[in-house]
Amino acid sequence: MTDAPHGDATLGGQDDAGGAVALARDLIRCPSVTPDDGCAIDVLADVLRRMGFTVTPLPFGEGSTRTPNLFARLGTTHPHVCFAGHTDVVPVGEGAWSSDPFAAQVREGILYGRGACDMKGGIAAFVAAVRSHLARHQGAPGGSISLLITGDEEGPATNGTVRVLQWMHEHAQIPDFCVVGEPTNPQTMGEVIKIGRRGSLNATISVNGVQGHVAYPHRADNPVHRLLAILHELTASPLDAGSDWFEPSSLQVTSIDVGNMATNVIPATARARLNIRFNDLHSGADLAGWIRTVCARHAPGAEVSVNISGESFLTQPTAGVEALRQAVADVTGHVPRLDTGGGTSDARFISRYCPVAEFGLVGASMHKVDEHVAVADLMQLTRIYDSFLERLMG
Amino acid sequence: MTDAPHGDATLGGQDDAGGAVALARDLIRCPSVTPDDGCAIDVLADVLRRMGFTVTPLPFGEGSTRTPNLFARLGTTHPHVCFAGHTDVVPVGEGAWSSDPFAAQVREGILYGRGACDMKGGIAAFVAAVRSHLARHQGAPGGSISLLITGDEEGPATNGTVRVLQWMHEHAQIPDFCVVGEPTNPQTMGEVIKIGRRGSLNATISVNGVQGHVAYPHRADNPVHRLLAILHELTASPLDAGSDWFEPSSLQVTSIDVGNMATNVIPATARARLNIRFNDLHSGADLAGWIRTVCARHAPGAEVSVNISGESFLTQPTAGVEALRQAVADVTGHVPRLDTGGGTSDARFISRYCPVAEFGLVGASMHKVDEHVAVADLMQLTRIYDSFLERLMG
Repeated sequence: MTDAPHGDATLGGQDDAGGAVALARDLIRCPSVTPDDGCAIDVLADVLRRMGFTVTPLPFGEGSTRTPNLFARLGTTHPHVCFAGHTDVVPVGEGAWSSDPFAAQVREGILYGRGACDMKGGIAAFVAAVRSHLARHQGAPGGSISLLITGDEEGPATNGTVRVLQWMHEHAQIPDFCVVGEPTNPQTMGEVIKIGRRGSLNATISVNGVQGHVAYPHRADNPVHRLLAILHELTASPLDAGSDWFEPSSLQVTSIDVGNMATNVIPATARARLNIRFNDLHSGADLAGWIRTVCARHAPGAEVSVNISGESFLTQPTAGVEALRQAVADVTGHVPRLDTGGGTSDARFISRYCPVAEFGLVGASMHKVDEHVAVADLMQLTRIYDSFLERLMG
Repeated sequence: MTDAPHGDATLGGQDDAGGAVALARDLIRCPSVTPDDGCAIDVLADVLRRMGFTVTPLPFGEGSTRTPNLFARLGTTHPHVCFAGHTDVVPVGEGAWSSDPFAAQVREGILYGRGACDMKGGIAAFVAAVRSHLARHQGAPGGSISLLITGDEEGPATNGTVRVLQWMHEHAQIPDFCVVGEPTNPQTMGEVIKIGRRGSLNATISVNGVQGHVAYPHRADNPVHRLLAILHELTASPLDAGSDWFEPSSLQVTSIDVGNMATNVIPATARARLNIRFNDLHSGADLAGWIRTVCARHAPGAEVSVNISGESFLTQPTAGVEALRQAVADVTGHVPRLDTGGGTSDARFISRYCPVAEFGLVGASMHKVDEHVAVADLMQLTRIYDSFLERLMG
């Protein structure tokens, strides 16, 4: 547990201003592999209370789906800046770690541990930045600062950020701007701020035909050929050429499965699965309709199941984004690229309520064996968040 | 065991001329489910010896692959007419038979049993026809008559007809014309004589790509999309429009298998299997080359495995076919269609050595539960084979 900044021999003389490294290590030592909580949210809640935050634990769900979450706020005025993140981590994986994934070892200026960059390090940097900001302003920021923390981002994400946002909306706690601390930089600090994400849609297409002998195809109806016609039409041309802030949408057929072992038999059914990552030129509903139309044309009885896991969103680069960009540029010396690529994050839920941008650590080792973050990066991220807060409410 | 024609109360007063029904029942009572021999070939050999045939047992293979076969010939002069068939049968299957599949019950003019139409009935009709022919010609036909019988047509067909033909070739026993007694009539006697068969080719195509996350398709190489391009080109247009004696060739994709359970992952490999039934406008080698070329265009590293299980063949409708057609027309009152459709048979091997045609019983119940043949059909087939022999060597 961490109360305040303190020196640490392992940091090689670097100053852990605000205690980012110490808090990151405390959080990593809680083995909060999704859906287990470990002690991570409790550790964080205790730190925030000691800093003067009003902490509201917001567990949602019952039994095995029970998810720990919290909303914490300091101050009541505007601007209201919120930091969003998650304390749960992915499993340690199959390979051998060079040290215990939950020991939070620092070796040669690198902090190792599951969650180091995704994203306990990000949470710790934000808390440390708030400490510095409060110290500079005698405990009274020129607005209010909140944290939206979930224990279910890596899991089904059902009882996490979505439910907390509903609660925040009902309790008039929606912020003016939100920063998600996911690792956004591919290789070095300062490369990328994400101001949107593509949407994601999964579809399963099952085609039923009429089984028969390959020697008598006119007595059968080959569902594989109907499925091929569907998939050819769906993949024949690009969905678009990209838009102002987005790269082109992408459709990937991820599996086709028939499972027919007999070489002389036309099978009875064939199934395919596909994923679409789509930009702001499409909606999930439009794409689902298009898939159903194509299926109906080539296989009238096809069963089509579509799951839209997120619509695309874009935060126009206005005040909050600009403050973040200048903070990054000042601290790192790099002007970050405003980007909308990559996978999905909880920012897709937040975007329904307020402007949101994402900036965090270097993500190269996330979800891998020996996940790690440079201590220098953690300290730099702390200074970036501090500078960002100063620009918005200093 | 059957020595000679005899009356049978179960036949309802019909005359089992030549003993076709009696021999068919004796053969069905030998449970010769491939690869087991039962006693079928021995029963047949004994009957043929008593009729004056020189019988040469020709077992090939060792241990579990040992296959019983025989070649039997009566006379040494030309024309030499050969009858080809098999004594092995397919398993009884999963459903419940209305009587023991090896009891050879006759009920209301129908003989039930595994092999009744495919093709112990055909063998029995041929032997009965030879008996009638010999009786008419005082034991001396105007040429020679032989039988090529294998116990491995329903199995791998490796040590059966192919090996017997090699032996016949080496011993100067290749006939002038061969009739295969497979059931060729879809519904009623006299419908179809087969004078050729399509070829058959199986191919397996495995495409290796580069696995990756669906959100970053530019870092992956989706093997499903490459496989789709291959299969689309292979199935885009018909292989041909048919030829003088053949229906159009047909390509059927029988399975596509990826087995990727993760909706957000581009898989590493994708595999498809296909079968082509092809007419005399193609050779197996040409089609294999075409498949390899298409694969190389869309997926340079694709692994393509091709197995040609038979080339197409055609016996031009000359003397032997004409004699068979006239015999069928005379006895049944129907002029049979000369056809090349359907699956493969051992005729594909015989066609390499001499003209061959196929005519037998009604095949509607073959390979099914309650396989059966009408006693009247057995007797009619006997008269057809008798008439055929008379036309060629009477």
